[in-house]
Amino acid sequence: MEFEETVLNRRMVRNFTPEPVPEEHVRRILDLAMHSPSAGFSQGCAYIVVRDALRRREVGKIQGEVDYAAGGFGEFISKAPLIIVPCVSEEIYHDRYREPDKLQDDGKEIQWPVPYWYFDVGAASMVVLLAAVNLGYAAAFAGTFDPIALRNFLGIPEKFHPVGTISIGKPAKDKRSPSLKRGRRPFDQVVHFEKW
Amino acid sequence: MEFEETVLNRRMVRNFTPEPVPEEHVRRILDLAMHSPSAGFSQGCAYIVVRDALRRREVGKIQGEVDYAAGGFGEFISKAPLIIVPCVSEEIYHDRYREPDKLQDDGKEIQWPVPYWYFDVGAASMVVLLAAVNLGYAAAFAGTFDPIALRNFLGIPEKFHPVGTISIGKPAKDKRSPSLKRGRRPFDQVVHFEKW
Repeated sequence: MEFEETVLNRRMVRNFTPEPVPEEHVRRILDLAMHSPSAGFSQGCAYIVVRDALRRREVGKIQGEVDYAAGGFGEFISKAPLIIVPCVSEEIYHDRYREPDKLQDDGKEIQWPVPYWYFDVGAASMVVLLAAVNLGYAAAFAGTFDPIALRNFLGIPEKFHPVGTISIGKPAKDKRSPSLKRGRRPFDQVVHFEKW
Repeated sequence: MEFEETVLNRRMVRNFTPEPVPEEHVRRILDLAMHSPSAGFSQGCAYIVVRDALRRREVGKIQGEVDYAAGGFGEFISKAPLIIVPCVSEEIYHDRYREPDKLQDDGKEIQWPVPYWYFDVGAASMVVLLAAVNLGYAAAFAGTFDPIALRNFLGIPEKFHPVGTISIGKPAKDKRSPSLKRGRRPFDQVVHFEKW
């Protein structure tokens, strides 16, 4: 699909047909995600792929899917044929910026005014969402309120933080997020030329 | 350009020809960025477009461009015909999640185990980088060490945090980042099936 079409067609879809996502597509989506940038080429992101129905059920439970379902969205985590859990390790960034080529003149690690590990995992997750759309799927990201439960259930090492779940599958009739009623902010409020 | 080609062609390029980026392209790039997702459709991102040569010089100075130039990259901020400064407001997210439809059952705002505002501005910035490549440009993101100086110079309101600069222009012969010598982490170390 054309790049701009992919971006404009993407929206959070929270209902899927049960049709499985073939391994080849899972790999293509994640290969592309691995081509997203990272500070100092730290490559601090990792992904867990969950397709087993019982395991999806458990991930849906941890993600508080019941509350989404009560809001009319349905069980869009456990019922998606594919769940990808993006994770990021802050520690890998610190390790990278303690290597000789990244140390400051005073021999110390840089200060981090922005937690760029979250910025980078956001960029990588965006590629996952778009890559799914490009292959004819729909996707929905759900943030997590319980990263520790996700970590425990999925065996994620201490140093990695799971940031949520991306549900992927062929789109079925869905309920649009009521948040969309807020309307899109106008261009001129969001973009400023030369100065704010 | 095809979506996958756009992703695979994107890399950080730190040298550009002086050819200006027309207003129409600036608007297309940022229109697409505005189609990236945000928690609760908070839309907490904003962008400053800097094209004026003197102002680019100042932004380059704030971004410590001299150090990059000493490393052999050249002045890839001030010499890019277009700089986009992505900003995000944490406050807008808190305001959004204090609206009635987002409050918890106990009437309180959710806890934020992940600063999703940085995740979202990372996703939006990724769209900017890819949209530039799709239009035949190259781009480079540089994080910031001095968000306060950027804020002061660009007149950014207190509640918005500038996260860096995206330099955009037609690609010229560039020096590749030495970080790339680290090599890409292999797929099987990054992706885990069913559990880590």
